Amino acid sequence: MAPKTALDHVITLAKRRGFVFQSGEIYGGSRSAWDYGPLGTELKENIKAEWWQTFVRGRGDMVGLDSAIILPQAVWHASGHVKTFTDPLVESLHTHKRYRADHLLEAYEAKHGHPPANGLDDIKDPETGQPGKWTEPQQFSGLMKTFLGPVDNEEGLHYMRPETAQGIFVNFSNVMTSARKKPPFGIGQVGKAFRNEITPGNFIFRTREFEQMEIEYFTHPDEAGHWFDHWVDACYDWFIRLGLNPENLRKFDVPEDERAHYSAATIDLEYRFGFQGSAWGELMGIANRTDYDLSSHIEASGEKLQYFDPKTEEHYTPYVIEPSFGLTRAMMAFLVDSYHEEEAPNAKGGVDVRTVLKLHPRLAPVKAAVLPLSKKPELAEPAQRLADELRRNWNIEYDEAGAIGRRYRRQDEIGTPFCITYDFDTLEDHAVTIRDRDEMTQERVSLDQVQGYLAAKLLG
Amino acid sequence: MAPKTALDHVITLAKRRGFVFQSGEIYGGSRSAWDYGPLGTELKENIKAEWWQTFVRGRGDMVGLDSAIILPQAVWHASGHVKTFTDPLVESLHTHKRYRADHLLEAYEAKHGHPPANGLDDIKDPETGQPGKWTEPQQFSGLMKTFLGPVDNEEGLHYMRPETAQGIFVNFSNVMTSARKKPPFGIGQVGKAFRNEITPGNFIFRTREFEQMEIEYFTHPDEAGHWFDHWVDACYDWFIRLGLNPENLRKFDVPEDERAHYSAATIDLEYRFGFQGSAWGELMGIANRTDYDLSSHIEASGEKLQYFDPKTEEHYTPYVIEPSFGLTRAMMAFLVDSYHEEEAPNAKGGVDVRTVLKLHPRLAPVKAAVLPLSKKPELAEPAQRLADELRRNWNIEYDEAGAIGRRYRRQDEIGTPFCITYDFDTLEDHAVTIRDRDEMTQERVSLDQVQGYLAAKLLG
Repeated sequence: MAPKTALDHVITLAKRRGFVFQSGEIYGGSRSAWDYGPLGTELKENIKAEWWQTFVRGRGDMVGLDSAIILPQAVWHASGHVKTFTDPLVESLHTHKRYRADHLLEAYEAKHGHPPANGLDDIKDPETGQPGKWTEPQQFSGLMKTFLGPVDNEEGLHYMRPETAQGIFVNFSNVMTSARKKPPFGIGQVGKAFRNEITPGNFIFRTREFEQMEIEYFTHPDEAGHWFDHWVDACYDWFIRLGLNPENLRKFDVPEDERAHYSAATIDLEYRFGFQGSAWGELMGIANRTDYDLSSHIEASGEKLQYFDPKTEEHYTPYVIEPSFGLTRAMMAFLVDSYHEEEAPNAKGGVDVRTVLKLHPRLAPVKAAVLPLSKKPELAEPAQRLADELRRNWNIEYDEAGAIGRRYRRQDEIGTPFCITYDFDTLEDHAVTIRDRDEMTQERVSLDQVQGYLAAKLLG
Repeated sequence: MAPKTALDHVITLAKRRGFVFQSGEIYGGSRSAWDYGPLGTELKENIKAEWWQTFVRGRGDMVGLDSAIILPQAVWHASGHVKTFTDPLVESLHTHKRYRADHLLEAYEAKHGHPPANGLDDIKDPETGQPGKWTEPQQFSGLMKTFLGPVDNEEGLHYMRPETAQGIFVNFSNVMTSARKKPPFGIGQVGKAFRNEITPGNFIFRTREFEQMEIEYFTHPDEAGHWFDHWVDACYDWFIRLGLNPENLRKFDVPEDERAHYSAATIDLEYRFGFQGSAWGELMGIANRTDYDLSSHIEASGEKLQYFDPKTEEHYTPYVIEPSFGLTRAMMAFLVDSYHEEEAPNAKGGVDVRTVLKLHPRLAPVKAAVLPLSKKPELAEPAQRLADELRRNWNIEYDEAGAIGRRYRRQDEIGTPFCITYDFDTLEDHAVTIRDRDEMTQERVSLDQVQGYLAAKLLG
């Protein structure tokens, strides 16, 4: 058996400590989506908040939007999704199960080092191992359908968005006018999207229900190249500033024949997730979508999704630079990257191995844990009051169970940056000991300065 | 024509200033959902953040969860939704359009003051006015369907959640174990839900796609009454603390025959939205759901969703108190409540009418606007730098266009609590004038104290 990777350890930890659960586990679970437990929800919210602050609230040239998941059908006809958002599926005549033809061919090539000489004819049934008998490939839509209104017919047919981007494009004029913006400016959005993936997998990496953080940045066509470079750097820097190891993050300049047909340039940021087979996976992409999207909606709707520049008296359809992030992929990268097993001194003067998530303090789901040295009410009660006071600003855990060393380890493995020990001396000197997760150093801090201490470390 | 109500004004303002747009407007729009513009998105996020801080992060007895929208089918069979989440529909034989039978009967009674003597036979076709010819009522499911996987059949049939609550119940044991909690404790969740409403309407009040903020609070059955009262008060206080006028908020004790069959007690908080016909509408509800939900899932899944109390050695299925908030209903209530038209002095020494949203500063979408008195670079450039600096912490607008009085009005009508004027004196005294939205008083504040001034007013 292959040795366990950081990813394997993260998956086990995520379940045990309540970052991520299998969705609907008590009913056998679903491969389509995952449920985020208390710690996963906080971590995810912290990633969103950092993203929103950096890219939306923090910039004078950006505003936010929250458009609906179910938009009118016409949006998806105009965007091209109804016609072209498809994958080729074949059915095995042995089992009547369906597979993605391109995935079968890729798997063959990965195994044999060359493509099959006779195409699908050379590919065995993956379940039974019999010589393959396959139907002709048929295009299968990745759009998920639903029906609105009192009858399930064409009139009621709607699609669940496969990306948040189109909700931004169709609101371009509404936003530009009401927010009194002009290019270059951008619109950011965070929200769920849905794709009927045939083969979801790799933990939270590929799911049918997922969350995106997308920016559509509108610029004069002549400035699109400049802004493309700007956004590639801004996205890369964001991940590094939040702690990703640069050795695990790389830029991949997508060649023309692999890009979407409307894209003039695409750079993917890839992270070394450590998947079996191919270690690197797409974390996010930045694309120059030209004026493809706005032009498509202009043509289909007859609305004028353009900008008139009063200085140059030019009407133009802006180009769009799109940085598109997968929220749960970002979360997975931060978890894998921050996972460490390392030697640490134990209470007996020896050394043992501790598991620690070295998450950036702003991302850490729990900011501090308050630990009374004893369960006795004389310590436990004021320690609880301290925890309650700190909760007015941060997510705080209170833990009075077990030896102090064991409690430190529990906090280390969920990435809590600070452990605050309330001991018998506290009753005398009105001070607590604050332990740093990474350095394992301890500082004595006066009770009335704990809020300020945390604020300086967490907001600075 | 009836005089315009605050609600009418709010709807107009919401569109014009970019709080709420019709979804997919360039394609004729959708009644199913709305798109939230830059200001609406910020307001909605601020409501969520206040809710999460008050009810989840701020409490030691609460944790968060984020479960999937598409859960396994079995969840909705066990919860009873597949069987009972239905409305009676009839079809008019004149137009072949479908209507909710109960709504037709209610409308008749509202108009005539008594129910129809012969039931549906007395009700005319609403479109043509012809004597009604109706099919027998048929039960129609409010669940929205979709299909996962490579074929659209029973196996792939899934439902989009009509409430976030069930995602909490099915994770009860996972959360309790991983977060090391014991009753009384609760789980909070914010997220989208979907119901195939036959008649969406009243702006963002009733939509097919909507957002909920739900708490499921698990307690010993003997303590359920105590916690029910606790949560009714906590919810009521939350709205009042965030500025709702108590005259517009009331508790409605739902009588037994109108409650869900599993509910031992339900109190709705109703807000005076000012709808035509009935002014009051349901803002949220608090229900004592007994052990109905956990027991249903125990029976269907065979899992033990119970708590063992080591002190009393008792195994029990907790009772659930459910405070369930509609996020967009809360947003609508805060908008309607904060809308004011009032006399205000103008620049000519006279008086005119200003529109002002007196939103709580923590909810206000824009916290402060930076306004240089002149567009000249000597003022505009340092003013922009001040705006950029403040953006590190808050959502800030920068506006240099038009007379200062007009700029104040623009900020008043979106509820910006503070306007910061950067004038020629600023170049000398390194201070700015900060105007208070409600009092319209002005204070001179030193540039290096602006961050602190806002922090004290916005976080205090």
